[in-house]
Amino acid sequence: MRWDELSTPALTVDADVLDRNLRRMADYCQSHSLGLRPHTKTHKIPEVARLQVRYGAIGLTVAKVGEAEVMCGAGLDNILVAYPVMGPKKHERLAALALNHSMLVSLDSETVAEALASAAKQQSATIGVLVEFDAGLGRCGLEPGPGLVDLAQKIMRLPSLRFRGLMCYPGQVSGSAEARQREIARVVEKVERARAAFRQEQIPVEIVSAGSTPSAFQSHLIPGLTEIRPGTYVYNDMNTFYQGACAVEDCAARVVTTVVSTAVAGGAILDAGSKTLSSDPLRFGPASGYGYIVEAPDAPIVKLNEEHGYVDMRRAPRQLRVGDVVSIIPNHVCTCVNMHDEIFVVRQGMVERTWRVAARGKIR
Amino acid sequence: MRWDELSTPALTVDADVLDRNLRRMADYCQSHSLGLRPHTKTHKIPEVARLQVRYGAIGLTVAKVGEAEVMCGAGLDNILVAYPVMGPKKHERLAALALNHSMLVSLDSETVAEALASAAKQQSATIGVLVEFDAGLGRCGLEPGPGLVDLAQKIMRLPSLRFRGLMCYPGQVSGSAEARQREIARVVEKVERARAAFRQEQIPVEIVSAGSTPSAFQSHLIPGLTEIRPGTYVYNDMNTFYQGACAVEDCAARVVTTVVSTAVAGGAILDAGSKTLSSDPLRFGPASGYGYIVEAPDAPIVKLNEEHGYVDMRRAPRQLRVGDVVSIIPNHVCTCVNMHDEIFVVRQGMVERTWRVAARGKIR
Repeated sequence: MRWDELSTPALTVDADVLDRNLRRMADYCQSHSLGLRPHTKTHKIPEVARLQVRYGAIGLTVAKVGEAEVMCGAGLDNILVAYPVMGPKKHERLAALALNHSMLVSLDSETVAEALASAAKQQSATIGVLVEFDAGLGRCGLEPGPGLVDLAQKIMRLPSLRFRGLMCYPGQVSGSAEARQREIARVVEKVERARAAFRQEQIPVEIVSAGSTPSAFQSHLIPGLTEIRPGTYVYNDMNTFYQGACAVEDCAARVVTTVVSTAVAGGAILDAGSKTLSSDPLRFGPASGYGYIVEAPDAPIVKLNEEHGYVDMRRAPRQLRVGDVVSIIPNHVCTCVNMHDEIFVVRQGMVERTWRVAARGKIR
Repeated sequence: MRWDELSTPALTVDADVLDRNLRRMADYCQSHSLGLRPHTKTHKIPEVARLQVRYGAIGLTVAKVGEAEVMCGAGLDNILVAYPVMGPKKHERLAALALNHSMLVSLDSETVAEALASAAKQQSATIGVLVEFDAGLGRCGLEPGPGLVDLAQKIMRLPSLRFRGLMCYPGQVSGSAEARQREIARVVEKVERARAAFRQEQIPVEIVSAGSTPSAFQSHLIPGLTEIRPGTYVYNDMNTFYQGACAVEDCAARVVTTVVSTAVAGGAILDAGSKTLSSDPLRFGPASGYGYIVEAPDAPIVKLNEEHGYVDMRRAPRQLRVGDVVSIIPNHVCTCVNMHDEIFVVRQGMVERTWRVAARGKIR
C-alpha cells in the first residue's frame, strides 16, 4: 500500500530517515566518547528502542514507571527513569523492575529518596540514583553546590539505593544558534560547579547525564558529561527544524490526513485536529500554525479543533479538494505520537509494517 | 480508597456531579421538547453514554467511525457521526455498522455523499444523512440557501442514502454572556434561512440538529431545532466555567497529581504535564494557566512540559511540599480525557469504580 492509501488520519514514519537520524546521533556520541541514553518518550516503541541499542545506545531513558515496564517487558534493560517519581505504588513497581533489571532514577529531594529507599528495601532490590541539578531551565534540580553533595551523601546512607552520579536537563538550550550558544555556556558553568562540589568532597561521580535534541550536537562543548539523553532526534519536527537542529528532510514522522470539507470559502478542513496532532504551538521560527503540509507548503494550518484542522487556502497556488490526501510534519512530534496507538512504517513511499506505540497511555 | 490515595497522575470523575450534569441537561431538553443527542467525544465511555440514554437521550453523537464502533459494540444505537467522513475504508466500516444500527452521517459535499453512497450500496446498507450548513463558525457546512437544497436533492437521488435533515455546529457561540447572545441571534438567522430554503422547495426536514455546551441552555431561543448535541456538559471544565456556562462545583472531572519537586525557589513541579492535561490553553476569562488547582487556588500552573506542571508558588499562602497530592480542574476536559486510558469514579471522596475510556485512540 502507498502512504496516501492509508485510512486517515494516520501517523507514519519514513524508515530510511529514521535510520539516518539514529545513525547520525550514534556516530556523534561515539566520536566524542559520550554515552547515548535516548529518551524513549518521543517514540514509546520497543522496536525503535531496540534499533537505538543496536546502534550503540548504552541504555534508555523514560519518564514514567509504566514506560519502563513496557521497555523491560520487551527485553530491554539499563533504564533511567529521568523523573523524581513519587508515590508508594510507583515505587513498589520500580523496585520490582530493579529485581531483574538495571534501574536508575533521578531525584532532587530527600523525601523522594527516602520513600524510594523504603520501597526498594521491602523487596531487597537495589536502585541506582542520579541526583538532579538545575542547569538553567528552572524546572527540577537543586542549585549545583554543597546542597547537591548533601543529598548525595544522604542517599549513600540510605538502604537499597546506590548513588551513581548527576543529572541535568538543559531544556533552555533552544531557539536560534546564538541563543543556544549562550545557554550552552551557562550549562558548562553549572556542570562544572556541580562536579567541583563533588571533587571537593572527594566523592566519585560515575555518571554525568545531560542532553536534549536541540543541544545534542553541542554536547562535546560541555566538559565532564558522560552521557546524553536526546529524544526528539529520532523523528524530529518543525520545532527542531526552526531551531536549525535538523533539515526538513530529517523529519521522519508525518500525519497523513484527508481533506473533508471545502464548503467555507478560502479554507479547507483536514481530518487531523488537536486529538491527532496535539495542540502544541510552533515555538520557534518565523511561521505560526499547527504543522507543515508537505504537499501544500503555502497553505498554513491556522487553527485546530479536536478533529478539524483549518487550512487557509487564500495564498495557496493550488486549491485542495475534498478527498485529497496530504501529509503534515507536526510542530511537536512527542505530543503528536502520544495521540496514536500505532505508527505506520513507510519506505520509499510504501507502507512496510506497523509498530504499536506500546508505552502510550502509561502515564503512571 | 480515597481519591488522594490514587497512584498519580489519575483522572477522576465525581459521580454525583456527573449525575447532576446529566440530569440538568436532560431536564432542559425535555422541558423544551428538544431531542438530546449528546456528543460522546468528551467522555468516550459506553457506561456514560448508557447513563445519557437512561436520562432520555434520543441517540448519541460521535466524530469518528471508530468511536461509533465502540458505542455500537457496547449495545448502543442511533448514532450520528457528526463529521464529513471521507475515505473508502471508513465508508465500508460505516456501511457495515448501518446493517445493524441506525446510523446518521453529516456532510457538506457531493464528493463525500457519492463515495458514502457507493460503499453503502455495496453492502446493501442504508445510511441516514444530515446536510451541514455553516451557522457562523466558518468550519464546515454550506451557506444556508439554494446550494444546501441542491445537495439534499442530490442525496435523495443517490442509492442507499436517506436524507433526514440538517445539521449545524454553532461553535462560535462562546465567551461572555453578551457575546454568546449576539452569536445566538446569528444562529437563529442562519437556521431560519436554511429551513426557509427547504420550505420553499416543499422538502420536509425531519431533523434540525445543533447545539454545543456553551450554547446549550439557549437552544430554545433558536426556533426550528429538533435536537442538540452538547458534549462537554457531562464533566464541564475551566473554559466552560469562565464562559458562565457552569459553576466550579459543576466541574466533575479532576486530574489527581503529586508534587514531585520543589527544588527551584518559588515553584513546585506536579507530575501532570501536557501528556496528562493536554496543552490546550485557557480560552476565556481573566486567568491564564493550565488548570485550576482546587486545593491551592492561588498557585497557578504557569507552564507545562510533557510530564511536568510548573506551579508558581510566589503568591500562595501555603507552600506545597514534595509528596502533596492535589487535584486539577482542566482547561479543556475533552482533550484531557483523551490522554487517559481510564477514569476513576469517585463518590463522596471515595474511589468507587474504574471506567475504561474505550473509544480513546479510535481516531479513524
